[in-house]
Amino acid sequence: MYVRHLPWAPDAYPVSPTALSLALTVQGPPVAAVWVHYGDRYQTRRNRLQAMVKVGRSLAGDVYQAEVELPTGRFQYLFELVTAAGETIVWGANGAGSDLGRDEPFQFARILERDAPKVPSWVATAVGYHIFPDRFFRPLDADEPSPRRTGWDSVPKRTSFYGGTLRGIREKLPYLADLGITLLYLTPIFRSPSNHRYDTQDYYAVDPRLGSEQDLIDLVAASHSLGMKVILDAVFNHTSDRFFAFREAVRRGPGSTYWDWYFFADGERVNYETFGVAIPSMPKLNFANPAVEDYFLRVAVYWLQKAGIDGWRLDVANEVDHVFWRTFRERVKAQNPEALIVGEVWHDPTPWLGGDQFDGTMNYPFRQILLDYFTAGKLSVAEMARRLDTIRYRQTLPATTASWNLLGSHDTERILTLVDADMRRWRLLMVLLMTWTGIPMLYYGDELGMIGGPDPLCRAAMPWERTADLPSTHAILRALIGLRSTEPALQQGDLILDHDLTQRHVLQFQRHTARDTLTVTLNLSPVSHALPSQRTTLYVAGESMDDNLMPGSAEIWRHKCQLPSPGGA
Amino acid sequence: MYVRHLPWAPDAYPVSPTALSLALTVQGPPVAAVWVHYGDRYQTRRNRLQAMVKVGRSLAGDVYQAEVELPTGRFQYLFELVTAAGETIVWGANGAGSDLGRDEPFQFARILERDAPKVPSWVATAVGYHIFPDRFFRPLDADEPSPRRTGWDSVPKRTSFYGGTLRGIREKLPYLADLGITLLYLTPIFRSPSNHRYDTQDYYAVDPRLGSEQDLIDLVAASHSLGMKVILDAVFNHTSDRFFAFREAVRRGPGSTYWDWYFFADGERVNYETFGVAIPSMPKLNFANPAVEDYFLRVAVYWLQKAGIDGWRLDVANEVDHVFWRTFRERVKAQNPEALIVGEVWHDPTPWLGGDQFDGTMNYPFRQILLDYFTAGKLSVAEMARRLDTIRYRQTLPATTASWNLLGSHDTERILTLVDADMRRWRLLMVLLMTWTGIPMLYYGDELGMIGGPDPLCRAAMPWERTADLPSTHAILRALIGLRSTEPALQQGDLILDHDLTQRHVLQFQRHTARDTLTVTLNLSPVSHALPSQRTTLYVAGESMDDNLMPGSAEIWRHKCQLPSPGGA
Repeated sequence: MYVRHLPWAPDAYPVSPTALSLALTVQGPPVAAVWVHYGDRYQTRRNRLQAMVKVGRSLAGDVYQAEVELPTGRFQYLFELVTAAGETIVWGANGAGSDLGRDEPFQFARILERDAPKVPSWVATAVGYHIFPDRFFRPLDADEPSPRRTGWDSVPKRTSFYGGTLRGIREKLPYLADLGITLLYLTPIFRSPSNHRYDTQDYYAVDPRLGSEQDLIDLVAASHSLGMKVILDAVFNHTSDRFFAFREAVRRGPGSTYWDWYFFADGERVNYETFGVAIPSMPKLNFANPAVEDYFLRVAVYWLQKAGIDGWRLDVANEVDHVFWRTFRERVKAQNPEALIVGEVWHDPTPWLGGDQFDGTMNYPFRQILLDYFTAGKLSVAEMARRLDTIRYRQTLPATTASWNLLGSHDTERILTLVDADMRRWRLLMVLLMTWTGIPMLYYGDELGMIGGPDPLCRAAMPWERTADLPSTHAILRALIGLRSTEPALQQGDLILDHDLTQRHVLQFQRHTARDTLTVTLNLSPVSHALPSQRTTLYVAGESMDDNLMPGSAEIWRHKCQLPSPGGA
Repeated sequence: MYVRHLPWAPDAYPVSPTALSLALTVQGPPVAAVWVHYGDRYQTRRNRLQAMVKVGRSLAGDVYQAEVELPTGRFQYLFELVTAAGETIVWGANGAGSDLGRDEPFQFARILERDAPKVPSWVATAVGYHIFPDRFFRPLDADEPSPRRTGWDSVPKRTSFYGGTLRGIREKLPYLADLGITLLYLTPIFRSPSNHRYDTQDYYAVDPRLGSEQDLIDLVAASHSLGMKVILDAVFNHTSDRFFAFREAVRRGPGSTYWDWYFFADGERVNYETFGVAIPSMPKLNFANPAVEDYFLRVAVYWLQKAGIDGWRLDVANEVDHVFWRTFRERVKAQNPEALIVGEVWHDPTPWLGGDQFDGTMNYPFRQILLDYFTAGKLSVAEMARRLDTIRYRQTLPATTASWNLLGSHDTERILTLVDADMRRWRLLMVLLMTWTGIPMLYYGDELGMIGGPDPLCRAAMPWERTADLPSTHAILRALIGLRSTEPALQQGDLILDHDLTQRHVLQFQRHTARDTLTVTLNLSPVSHALPSQRTTLYVAGESMDDNLMPGSAEIWRHKCQLPSPGGA
């Protein structure tokens, strides 16, 4: 039997000043019961007992979880596993043992307020919308088109400017509010030579093509009045080569104050490290230089103060040092404890999600798993389910709740393109997106059925003409968002996947709160799947007939015998 | 087969701006070879290959290690395992696979200078000595004994004062230098009502019983002139109830500025959290209060500046929050990058050893394993060896190198008492202490054969009369320290345990540098154990006859066919 427990996050972390969440992963012969024996570290006895609940199945094994509580917040604990064969194994700090009284226990020395993972209180209810500002909306009274501006309907090129503005976004806020959006994320808006603005020229200036500083302030205020948060894009890994510090460094050479802001190589030519592979317009910053650290900490706080934004999305967050992000978090949270910090990390984000750096990350792994099943056909339903549990249980629940679940972005093909415009699969994906733990993020125009290949094709202009006769994509998302917004179980319920049903190609999970349970069933099999007749159907994607969920269909439902949730629809 | 790799420390961490240390743990069928395939994250191919070396056997399985290097410092990598049966398994971010070209690789996004674990450059050569100042030496010209002072030779009680002073320590520095000591650790010396001074009354004042601030400055200067570092004890988890902030809080009640420095409970009586279980003289501090954080950060820096001390040992470090320790590290290292930070953590110290908090910890787990074998008889040699590897590979090599290996302290029975004054076992333990990775720490008087049960009996006064005719304990330690001090392999060589020999009850390990290999052999079996005749014996504890190491003996030796180490003896 293989058992894993590491006595720190995510396997052990505080959920209150006196309670600890504990997780244990078990692989091997079937287990009938798992217990945790615990007590205060300064006492000799572990005289409290709590049953652990099987909450999932990761690639490493079955995951068991329990919350244990002690007034002192100082824990010692041992696990006891009883196999189906009746054998008992004690699991402690020295691995497998047999003596609950004498085996070396794990220790969680003391719960301390500042070490507990804490995310903004509003994340569980948020529904996000990701905007590429140049492509969202150009108000009618905007300046006349410049010669450089592309026609709104043209196919995007890497250099195209479409003329979308911050005021344009503000004008469309009612449209977004109607859709149910409560969180806007704008890709970069600061002065930059490019349309994507990931090469920032001036971190203190709104790009004049997008509008003025006042336009930003007005956009945030208008968003807030409609109950929407606004997150901006912090591109701190690198600057534009037109940024003052880089220009100075190049102009004056190694004697410049700014030389050490970057990674110049020795040599006669000006060589320097960049983002990606030798992209000269994006020289990489050196955060080991205290002047760089200080400069960007000020930038971060400035816009929180000046425009009242609600947080930052951190570009290429995994290539900037942890030391900086820890200080960044301190400063941002000191300015606004409810500000959200979300890092761009495409791979395993565990090192950034210990509670000391980011609240969450852009959940690209979530997207990858769904694509591996729904578009690449590389996974079975059972494998998809295990991988989904793997990425949930490798981080704390607060971090999962504050992360952005996304199916597409300005850096990927659009989801409707990836499913070959197959509405059946698209709908199933949207059901998953809107019922999963974490902030669902739409990419602008997904609700209007936008298609688009890789960058720059995924960055076409928003097809507002389709709003005259809203497409079915919009209706589906509006309904799902409505459900997400009114069902506490979908917002913050525990999520328990049924790994037995995956053998029958059915992906089913329950979202539990203390007062309610909703079930989400995706029938991915070629045959119909029976659902209980004593149920209330909240949403059907596809077809459900005579309590049979048809192949390729999904349903969100509640058992009738349950008490209705007080906050429910 | 069970395989484990987590793409962060200690399984993945930078050892230079371009090189990464990677470790993989494997349990199951025998493995013939392990490879790591790697490449730059921005390239599509992992076209570099490195064989991994089996470096140990932890409780979780065999540990394989490799260093991989890339000029960009941005890694993607996959492991390839070939079983003895010829089967190949690819191990990547999604677990077991079979396709080196397409399986999801692990990623180490980019090596960044400030994230690399860094410890003082001097730790590998240090040999430490742990002093309880009241009990070390009372100079002849000290003040006349006060009525409260205990006779130097009396059995210690919890309340005894013996009159040792800082000047006394200074007078005995030549004795310590002769023994080979290069690092002094003093338990608390600041003003306090108790003899142990773990209840600090004034963090800015040397306790007048021990001497003056000038005495401390002189002690540090004299130590430095003899090549010794001085580490003081930072008791920040709690204060004395006589500390000004606590007195003010109690006097003025909830209205006091200092009320929130502690954890007062509601109620009419003054209730408050303390160290341990309701020890009223040691009220626990609240570091979530910025005033507390600020106060103790200043204390830490003050003594580095004022007396030039070389670092801090952190009392009850595991019950103070990580947030504080991160800032503490920043401030201390800003003042002196070569200062050492060692935390008191008796259990798994991993959460503090990521490079952002402590350099090392007091290696109580090392002591526990040796006691479990040598005194409790709870382990086989094989189990002892696996547990020793487990604690080494659960932290980075720099953290292990900067940790204090100890066999006893002011909080434990003395080691000679624990082995029932059995010199055979004592000698074997000292061989291990002096040849193992990490800073060997002697507890004052161990070299003079001091015995002593649990606190207060382990805190007897130093028996200086025994130095007239130095006991064999002194000669043994002096010789072993001499070897440690002159053999780079013992200071900073890799340590590879021979897990096959443990089956024959022989604990043997090699310490490798690029130029030298030393072998340490402990024959723990009841029969003699053959050693190669082509060897140079550096030290024998016990008896070695005709190339046979006798039962209960140990030898430190070098193969004759090796090139001699340039720095060797």
